[in-house]
Amino acid sequence: MNAAVMYEAGDVRIENVPDAAIEQPTDAVIRVTRACICGSDLWPYKDMEPTDGGVRMGHEALGVVEEIGADVRNVKKGDLVIMPFAFSDGTCEFCEEGLNTSCIHGGFFGLYSGCGAQAEAVRIPQADGTLYTVPNTEDDQLLASLLTLSDVMGTGFHAALMAAVEEGDKVAVVGDGAVGLCGVIAADLLGAEQIIILGRHQQRTELAKEFGATDVVSERGDEAVERVLDLTGGYGVHAVLECVGSEQSMATSVNIARPGGAVGRVGVPHYNGGQQADNTFFKNITVSGGPAPVRAYIEDLLPAIMDGIIDPGRVFDRTMSLAETPEGYRAMNERESLKVMIRP
Amino acid sequence: MNAAVMYEAGDVRIENVPDAAIEQPTDAVIRVTRACICGSDLWPYKDMEPTDGGVRMGHEALGVVEEIGADVRNVKKGDLVIMPFAFSDGTCEFCEEGLNTSCIHGGFFGLYSGCGAQAEAVRIPQADGTLYTVPNTEDDQLLASLLTLSDVMGTGFHAALMAAVEEGDKVAVVGDGAVGLCGVIAADLLGAEQIIILGRHQQRTELAKEFGATDVVSERGDEAVERVLDLTGGYGVHAVLECVGSEQSMATSVNIARPGGAVGRVGVPHYNGGQQADNTFFKNITVSGGPAPVRAYIEDLLPAIMDGIIDPGRVFDRTMSLAETPEGYRAMNERESLKVMIRP
Repeated sequence: MNAAVMYEAGDVRIENVPDAAIEQPTDAVIRVTRACICGSDLWPYKDMEPTDGGVRMGHEALGVVEEIGADVRNVKKGDLVIMPFAFSDGTCEFCEEGLNTSCIHGGFFGLYSGCGAQAEAVRIPQADGTLYTVPNTEDDQLLASLLTLSDVMGTGFHAALMAAVEEGDKVAVVGDGAVGLCGVIAADLLGAEQIIILGRHQQRTELAKEFGATDVVSERGDEAVERVLDLTGGYGVHAVLECVGSEQSMATSVNIARPGGAVGRVGVPHYNGGQQADNTFFKNITVSGGPAPVRAYIEDLLPAIMDGIIDPGRVFDRTMSLAETPEGYRAMNERESLKVMIRP
Repeated sequence: MNAAVMYEAGDVRIENVPDAAIEQPTDAVIRVTRACICGSDLWPYKDMEPTDGGVRMGHEALGVVEEIGADVRNVKKGDLVIMPFAFSDGTCEFCEEGLNTSCIHGGFFGLYSGCGAQAEAVRIPQADGTLYTVPNTEDDQLLASLLTLSDVMGTGFHAALMAAVEEGDKVAVVGDGAVGLCGVIAADLLGAEQIIILGRHQQRTELAKEFGATDVVSERGDEAVERVLDLTGGYGVHAVLECVGSEQSMATSVNIARPGGAVGRVGVPHYNGGQQADNTFFKNITVSGGPAPVRAYIEDLLPAIMDGIIDPGRVFDRTMSLAETPEGYRAMNERESLKVMIRP
């Protein structure tokens, strides 16, 4: 069969490769009826080191089931199916929680997996948990929309959910690629009142407006931040959908978020943010926090203290006079004391 | 009156300073009955550059209202009050949302504010929104617990809320200082099933156990990560309360979080994480996201497509044959095409 193979940056070839075939009893093989090229495929297209055998590409597809392994129960030959960009067993504790991308028997299509969707056919590991059967149709526009459920529409939706978009919110979408545009759709679906798209390609931002964007910001960096603050009464937006993955787009996202707001990032980080940033991203870890609004929390915690349910005062292990304060600093700094109380 | 003044790292003096006095009609002055030294006071104690006049210290206090400005309505002379570490008007949109630390007329006590609580008295800006009146009491243990509501107990609670601790969760608390110990109390209060405290001071981890910790990890770095993974069936905890603020503690926190988990950080970042990290922290911005579990989202989005509510397929602006795929990469890379569909 024919398939797309990338050999190095800028070098994609269509080659004859071995036919996709069942390897495990949980596999299926689908004949690809629609596939596509992802914005994230452009990263290796820009900077992949030369390889000897090349790597198979493509992680988004609609297809028709052609063959199933002995253990496959949920799909059958002839079904029209969506192939999400990650495969997953559908039964592990992470799949149960809805985080299929962390499936303990899962993985990703395309690149180094050997299962590339930019091909005539593709092997689907964990077919029962991975494939999603949809009604057969010949409607081209419907097929196009179904294809987006394999990645970009679901990814834009993830950005919106992770940014905690709520009814009436002010939202910014950073990036006017396909994921950003789907982010606009998602924000609109979740009831955002204002949707600001940050992008410089007029055709795309026009489509964003048709999808529900209320404002377009074509500036970048500090100027973009200033424009968004102007558009939002000076404080920024409740929710930012970061759909690029560059260091600048992430910095812009943080700077246009209002205090207490959230950034949902789905652009694969493509910069030197260190191991920590990568772990945060690929594990879908949320990082939150800052100075505590303790004034607000007194309402929640005071009753627990008055009722004797909690006794946090036990953290004080020394009491000193105001005059002894310098000694208190020394004692705490040298870990002799956990926390010093001062009685002036 | 007497007050603590820090001149440079390691140099704290008790000095006679001008009496605290009303400056604005919205001010109050409280006589300090209890104050304390915070873990965050130890950062300048370790590394503050020399100053000419010194800076006033202390941002946690219980006190008795001694004088109120002409516009103060909510507290009166003689009230026993909690002074949260930040002052806030209580009426702006951020205060309304419960994020008093971002009050548009607010600020922080201690350090460069001129209003230090390690003193006989302190001026309270925005007294109506800032002070919280509690029942008068002479009970030392109760007073100690009330004092923790000015910072450490509220801050530990914030860490737990930002880490989204829920009933039955596995939780880790990084740091055995007063905030970490209050984080243990908060996690217990919110119904955590397993609470792992990471700390090396036996007296403190013993107290943590009395507060509800189920496990103690005294290792650091990679060994700590390994131990936590061992204690949690290999995947890590749902919620991490980061109560230190060092680069290592943050990296450990991310590495012990299970996929889809959250880190609530309240340790003031004291490392070179760049402007972005600082903006994230001081504005209480949540950063979330990663690879989208699009398989799970098909359930949510398919009906919207079938009902014609959304039409994400419009992101495809070109359709090519499989043989044309290399041209598709070129076109997308040069921004000639938004997203290329492939029909094998």
